[in-house]
Amino acid sequence: MRAAVMREGRLVVDDVLDPVPGPGEILVRTIACGICGSDLHALQRPDALELSGDIVMGHEFCAETEDGRRVVSMPIAFGPDGPEAVGYSNRYPGGYGELMVLNEALLLETALDPRMAALTEPMAVGLHAVNRSRIERGERAMVFGCGPIGLAVIAFLARKGIEPIVAADLSPRRREMALAMGAHEIGALNPDGYPCVIFEAVGVPGMLDTIIRDAPRRSRVCVAGVCMDPDTIHPMTAIRKELEMQFVLGYEPDEFADTLRALTEGEVNVDGIVTGIVGIDGIPDAFEALARPDEAVKILVEPS
Amino acid sequence: MRAAVMREGRLVVDDVLDPVPGPGEILVRTIACGICGSDLHALQRPDALELSGDIVMGHEFCAETEDGRRVVSMPIAFGPDGPEAVGYSNRYPGGYGELMVLNEALLLETALDPRMAALTEPMAVGLHAVNRSRIERGERAMVFGCGPIGLAVIAFLARKGIEPIVAADLSPRRREMALAMGAHEIGALNPDGYPCVIFEAVGVPGMLDTIIRDAPRRSRVCVAGVCMDPDTIHPMTAIRKELEMQFVLGYEPDEFADTLRALTEGEVNVDGIVTGIVGIDGIPDAFEALARPDEAVKILVEPS
Repeated sequence: MRAAVMREGRLVVDDVLDPVPGPGEILVRTIACGICGSDLHALQRPDALELSGDIVMGHEFCAETEDGRRVVSMPIAFGPDGPEAVGYSNRYPGGYGELMVLNEALLLETALDPRMAALTEPMAVGLHAVNRSRIERGERAMVFGCGPIGLAVIAFLARKGIEPIVAADLSPRRREMALAMGAHEIGALNPDGYPCVIFEAVGVPGMLDTIIRDAPRRSRVCVAGVCMDPDTIHPMTAIRKELEMQFVLGYEPDEFADTLRALTEGEVNVDGIVTGIVGIDGIPDAFEALARPDEAVKILVEPS
Repeated sequence: MRAAVMREGRLVVDDVLDPVPGPGEILVRTIACGICGSDLHALQRPDALELSGDIVMGHEFCAETEDGRRVVSMPIAFGPDGPEAVGYSNRYPGGYGELMVLNEALLLETALDPRMAALTEPMAVGLHAVNRSRIERGERAMVFGCGPIGLAVIAFLARKGIEPIVAADLSPRRREMALAMGAHEIGALNPDGYPCVIFEAVGVPGMLDTIIRDAPRRSRVCVAGVCMDPDTIHPMTAIRKELEMQFVLGYEPDEFADTLRALTEGEVNVDGIVTGIVGIDGIPDAFEALARPDEAVKILVEPS
């Protein structure tokens, strides 16, 4: 099959062997697959994820079975050596190739537009962050970083009726999108303000300490941004303010299903998140575009 | 009055002016006052607490009013310039002197042995940490650092019926005391173990990252140890494990009162915490002894 392959720290388009389903698995054809910021990180630092050899990435996919069912699935496989992450595995190629092998028990059938269905995975990350934050109506939310994860957080905060949702991003385009997704205003933290629930969806060194410095007393910080580097904080400031920092990752199966349902019922507004569509040949250029955040939010790959 | 005075980064015993009560305040005679690790920090780094000029420290006190009532109180005063911390103030001397001025509305009368009553304040810090951690029966606790705060945490975990309570400290004497206070075993974190609620009561740089590295997935870390220096952590590890870090400080008025009640009813066991009694002249030496943690846990000052 045709695929974009991570090979020795570079992304190349090549022909690779078709994956072969094992017991309980099924061969599917990729219809649409989102490019995730984690894939950009992985390309820069494959060692951090303990990846080597050829990898076909892509874990935000909508696919079609051979008998014509349109499906989404959590990107997990249970291979002979135990659980593996589809799209970060030598055995289980992700959606940057024409074909994938998925676990039949994890498939969720959907009638959604495949471009929207492919957003299930990144949107579920936002729902999980909102759930883990234990935010309730009456509490104020502040979202730092309005890339796909920050926007997903905003969408599910809005669904929950949280008000106000205040958003921050360096990019004017992303700030505009945050308002479109349900944020009430663009703003900044105020150390003298009311306690709030702060979502960190930037993931660069220094962000945590900036938030610790500027957060109102007794705020909760939900850290959804993936920062690969060591980071320095001032614990004394966090202690004085009695801050809470909650690190979150991924989602639970019920959150993945709830996200698909929310997209299907139109409970969350994802219009405008997809800012580009490319074929397999366009993936390397799309990775470069995504490194410039004012240009793109979510780019989808359509392999066929 | 006679007092141990923090003056230009040193502790000297001297005669100072008697404090004078303002409206709503009352003059009391100090009976017993604990020496707190924070006072050791303050002596080393008065600038970090924004202290200058003569300071009579001591905020863990039991005192007697002129009409013979034995009282404890949260170490807070409401002076003409707003709230001040008794014992960290130029206006409100703490219990390292013979006399103090306290807010009448905050006094709690007690029949407890003054040496035990003086433990109300540090024990309340432990109760607050336990309350803020939201730990419930059925969850496992791990306490790092068995100084007065770690021991107070252990005592209130034991009161709550938490099991097991696992303790760790470099000092054999403090480990023994942890077991006497209610810890079930001495141990270490195991990254492959069950999630647990971890209390950090050491407060030295590097502890947080060690805990992040060794904590089981989805553990909660309650940070009660005061670390004045910047500290480096690996957020990616905390994210992978979905850890929660909760920074805590002090206590609420109801927790202070609950602690006094728990001490009075014998619900917590504090036998053996007090490892020394000194007069005002003995305070400078006691500070030195407390810097060597295998020698002392809590030293009380009895000014008269």
